[in-house]
Amino acid sequence: MNHPIIFDTDPGVDDAQAIAIALAHPDIELLGLTTTYGNVDIATATHNALLLSELAGQRIPVAQGAAGPLVKTKYPAPAFIHGENGLGNIELPPVKGQAEATSAAQFIIDQVNARPGEISLVAVGPLGNLAAALQLDPGIVDKVKQVVIMGGSIKEGGNVTPVAEANIFNDPHAAFRVLTAGWPLTMVGLDATHRCVLRPADMDIIAVGQGRLGDILAGSYAFYSDFYRGALGIDGCCPHDSCALAWLLKPELFTTARGHLMVVTEGDAEGQTIFAPEGRPFIDARWSRTPLVDVCTGADGKAVVEWIVETLK
Amino acid sequence: MNHPIIFDTDPGVDDAQAIAIALAHPDIELLGLTTTYGNVDIATATHNALLLSELAGQRIPVAQGAAGPLVKTKYPAPAFIHGENGLGNIELPPVKGQAEATSAAQFIIDQVNARPGEISLVAVGPLGNLAAALQLDPGIVDKVKQVVIMGGSIKEGGNVTPVAEANIFNDPHAAFRVLTAGWPLTMVGLDATHRCVLRPADMDIIAVGQGRLGDILAGSYAFYSDFYRGALGIDGCCPHDSCALAWLLKPELFTTARGHLMVVTEGDAEGQTIFAPEGRPFIDARWSRTPLVDVCTGADGKAVVEWIVETLK
Repeated sequence: MNHPIIFDTDPGVDDAQAIAIALAHPDIELLGLTTTYGNVDIATATHNALLLSELAGQRIPVAQGAAGPLVKTKYPAPAFIHGENGLGNIELPPVKGQAEATSAAQFIIDQVNARPGEISLVAVGPLGNLAAALQLDPGIVDKVKQVVIMGGSIKEGGNVTPVAEANIFNDPHAAFRVLTAGWPLTMVGLDATHRCVLRPADMDIIAVGQGRLGDILAGSYAFYSDFYRGALGIDGCCPHDSCALAWLLKPELFTTARGHLMVVTEGDAEGQTIFAPEGRPFIDARWSRTPLVDVCTGADGKAVVEWIVETLK
Repeated sequence: MNHPIIFDTDPGVDDAQAIAIALAHPDIELLGLTTTYGNVDIATATHNALLLSELAGQRIPVAQGAAGPLVKTKYPAPAFIHGENGLGNIELPPVKGQAEATSAAQFIIDQVNARPGEISLVAVGPLGNLAAALQLDPGIVDKVKQVVIMGGSIKEGGNVTPVAEANIFNDPHAAFRVLTAGWPLTMVGLDATHRCVLRPADMDIIAVGQGRLGDILAGSYAFYSDFYRGALGIDGCCPHDSCALAWLLKPELFTTARGHLMVVTEGDAEGQTIFAPEGRPFIDARWSRTPLVDVCTGADGKAVVEWIVETLK
């Protein structure tokens, strides 16, 4: 089955691996990469998106998007996780191409309107581009096939605050808009991605399989896994962004629940995703006011990692 | 070992069982019951506190406290869980005694100042009385032996909202004050209490063991367990409030973690407790600004229930 997608991304080490999957998988038709600040600043995100597709020998449109959050003050990019250049500070070859003349939001709108009902939006960074597209053309809600978000956390706790996952924390106002827009949406958050650990031996296989792109993936992975080892005591990395594509192609590897999502935009819980399971009564109807969506509550982590390695070997 | 305690309570079915433990256990010296609205209105709470100690053949001081939250608008008491009379709508005998002339907050202050370093405050309802005591006499922070709270939730999710436990939700502003006062404090929340299920066969033993008080405990339990069966599909009840006393006397039955607690006072996460483990870095020092406390992250539920039954048989 063919999956035409637009991949919204802030590459970023785990983004780079997911982009490699989107470029390599025979069932994915990658219509374009839209970029956002997040793991890196926006210029770096766009540079890396161009670079990664060129290294894979493909010319994929790259449309640049949000340089910062909708409302809140931007935090500095986490160079200690992804490196100053977003790819573990390894030396990178020059980029030949350049970004589209159109913005990320307009690119999304144009593509979705050209192929109504066909395109999936897979977003693995802060959600400013999807929020901007909704503001420019609310009609895309009914024309997108589905939206898959890597972000958020239900019971797993957060990774940048005790309760917030980084993508949602980076732009909670945009996230609230996108997660409650009323389009078919699945949130793949830390409850699923933390079940998946890609080990050094897995990356060795990917490095061999991906040629020049593989060198970048393996080199940046080494930097990223130093962070995981030091801060979290894990020998390996959670392939967060690749999980969104794994969900798209292999949903049977995940457990999901249907319900109402909200995003906290202010205070100590800022950036938290709140999930009210469908039909579960609470003290007030406030917690069922938003449209029904699907959230991943878990994953067969071993099988997801096997799928990633199989795709990139 | 003798544990002099003041038990702050909104009885309430599971409160009644905990009061029975406080009255019965040879290692607990019950100095007084302080009452708050919560499971029931304040007059009913005070009535039930007097009644329960009289049925056990004891004359325990009862001091009435908060009739509503500090800041937010009060929700109606959940009569569908505890009954209109707080004890499952069973017929109750008349009460002979009456409450102290002094308020709950003043009672706490007087007792703590009379026996500095000796008294544990065990609070199993909304936290308005402890907050009021802190406002009247902040010096009690250094004179209380320890504070044990039944309330809150870290990873378990909520019971009145997707993220908030009822006691904290009922008065989040009071809870923030009490949980961050800087006194030795342990929070026994849903992460522990949901591991404990008291079955009908357990209650049969308690009913026999507690005489006239046992009739009330068993009758109200039957009403409360109808709620658990209908809403949650559980054959039995979580003895939430008894878990706070189990922690006090048998802490080895629980797993705990040390860290910083915050309470969300506004918005969709209102009433949520946020826990930042000690030493875990987050994106901003905001999440480590509050004093260190202990929280229960789990419990040996079977052993806790055995301890309850053993105490009341």
